[in-house]
Amino acid sequence: MANQLTYNVAVVGATGAVGQQMIRILEERNFPVKQLKLLASSRSAGKTVKFQGQEVVVEEATPDSFAGVDYALFSAGGAISKELAHHAVRHGAVVIDNTSAFRMDPEVPLVVPEVNMDAALAHKGIIANPNCSTIQMVAALKPLYDRYGIDRIIVSTYQAVSGAGASAIEELLTQSRDVLDGKEPECKVLPVGKLPVHHQIAFNAIPQIDVFTENGFTFEEMKMTNETKKIFGDESVAVSATCVRIPVVYGHSESVYVELKQDYDLEEVKALLEKAPGIVLVDDPENQRYPLATEATGKLDVFVGRLRRDLTHQRGLHMWIVSDNLLKGAAWNTVQIAEELIKARA
Amino acid sequence: MANQLTYNVAVVGATGAVGQQMIRILEERNFPVKQLKLLASSRSAGKTVKFQGQEVVVEEATPDSFAGVDYALFSAGGAISKELAHHAVRHGAVVIDNTSAFRMDPEVPLVVPEVNMDAALAHKGIIANPNCSTIQMVAALKPLYDRYGIDRIIVSTYQAVSGAGASAIEELLTQSRDVLDGKEPECKVLPVGKLPVHHQIAFNAIPQIDVFTENGFTFEEMKMTNETKKIFGDESVAVSATCVRIPVVYGHSESVYVELKQDYDLEEVKALLEKAPGIVLVDDPENQRYPLATEATGKLDVFVGRLRRDLTHQRGLHMWIVSDNLLKGAAWNTVQIAEELIKARA
Repeated sequence: MANQLTYNVAVVGATGAVGQQMIRILEERNFPVKQLKLLASSRSAGKTVKFQGQEVVVEEATPDSFAGVDYALFSAGGAISKELAHHAVRHGAVVIDNTSAFRMDPEVPLVVPEVNMDAALAHKGIIANPNCSTIQMVAALKPLYDRYGIDRIIVSTYQAVSGAGASAIEELLTQSRDVLDGKEPECKVLPVGKLPVHHQIAFNAIPQIDVFTENGFTFEEMKMTNETKKIFGDESVAVSATCVRIPVVYGHSESVYVELKQDYDLEEVKALLEKAPGIVLVDDPENQRYPLATEATGKLDVFVGRLRRDLTHQRGLHMWIVSDNLLKGAAWNTVQIAEELIKARA
Repeated sequence: MANQLTYNVAVVGATGAVGQQMIRILEERNFPVKQLKLLASSRSAGKTVKFQGQEVVVEEATPDSFAGVDYALFSAGGAISKELAHHAVRHGAVVIDNTSAFRMDPEVPLVVPEVNMDAALAHKGIIANPNCSTIQMVAALKPLYDRYGIDRIIVSTYQAVSGAGASAIEELLTQSRDVLDGKEPECKVLPVGKLPVHHQIAFNAIPQIDVFTENGFTFEEMKMTNETKKIFGDESVAVSATCVRIPVVYGHSESVYVELKQDYDLEEVKALLEKAPGIVLVDDPENQRYPLATEATGKLDVFVGRLRRDLTHQRGLHMWIVSDNLLKGAAWNTVQIAEELIKARA
């Protein structure tokens, strides 16, 4: 397509776990890139990253890095987004921000393309990417929300360490080897690097992701509550979450109980999920088939299975939702928003 | 106590993961053992196990092994219990059975001492030990059941591989090392050894424990439903479970949502749990303290934390319950029943 429009794309946080996946996906998806600008902190400036066979030099992200940029994909932490996103907008870029910096800003749409792409189209320069654990849940629930309505959700998560960055991956792998070798594992990253207490993640389950809020829920849990309402554009959808880190490298799993507003037919639910965009139904108990983190790793889709009616609540439905937290949960959802914006313009 | 009564105790399945813990606990607790008889399959007969400084030879379990035995603690699989428990009773022993053989038998009490020791006292020769995931949950919920009543429970589990036996522990450790070494891990035990499909447990979460039943729940999940009703002696307590195996060696964790019958005060709930027998409250978010599988390993207690009111349901309460699945979940609960029977006789 010689006369296809192409775009200048900046990736901010290009050397991070999510940034690396963004670059990989831009390449894999043949995103119409005219020029790729890789930005990071001064610490990473000068490194090179391969893109479409060429070495691209990483530059330090500054307020003036965004001249001529069409799409600026941010994933360098909330502080960097707060500092630089408005400069990118000032230079005419559309910012798609993977941090929590603007997610609850009423001026900024919070977008999962399968759910509320209409909100993205009304953006004022910045579009926020939701939290990984929220994205996969709302993508899977969208067809049920549309057909039956949702009263409430109770979710318990089984989250991979990659959600806490490259240092958490390193910590899990090092600790695992230490435990296997009979050595005392060192704990310095999880549950939250900047907090004083750290716990072993290897061969353990840590019921804390992000800091605690006043109501006893963690910030990660409240993200699931608040972001779900915002994405559905419906304050009446109640979400109570328990977010748990487990010794998995890639792929968040979620045990989701949802109370629908109307009675449902289980076979219809399966049919709705089977044809839903971005969703893969893996639900064959007879052959022991259900979504698994190991099988979701590297895939763009959200996998759903273990569908079954609650034993006592007629409108209650249980499901198991798995997706690669760095892809649909972060890098892919970000690039996907950009792809959909381009499609909508075309 | 020179004139204390002592008892002949048999452990059936003495060389298994739970049997070994039973022997250790009998010793640790100074259980009043006159003679310890260690029984197992013919395969393990002739092995020796240390007890109170002496080597005890393991004998093959046969219908006539139980002459003179006062307490027979079974943990050698359901088939062995079905074959031999009645012979032990015939010889005058009280059988405390850790398998699922008799759990739902209306003639057999299903007992967690903190909850329904009265049922145990009315036994007809056999007392059943509940499933590990049920025991720790009902022990923690008992004070709330008594004070407020319970309408329903929605639980998602994070279960250790030791619940599937020594071969599953070996599989997790071997697979973990293989993955760390970049080798393809071999899968032949989990989720269920005898079923045709096996999945990787290292760095993964498997939403299947035991076989599937017709309603889409697994047998493990239905155990939590049915055993909870039987232990509380209350068919109205609704339980819907999602049981998940995670890469942890010892210690089951549970994310439990409970809807009480009456409104509650969160501080009162904490006070009730704090003084409940067998329960340790670990609930200090400010200092990032909550129950952890690694910290529960080797302990007899059930640890409870992350207590918080549901965001929308006034009578809804969330909690995180952790215990050593081989101890309170199996060996300790069994020995504890015997201890309580002796106390009641005294």
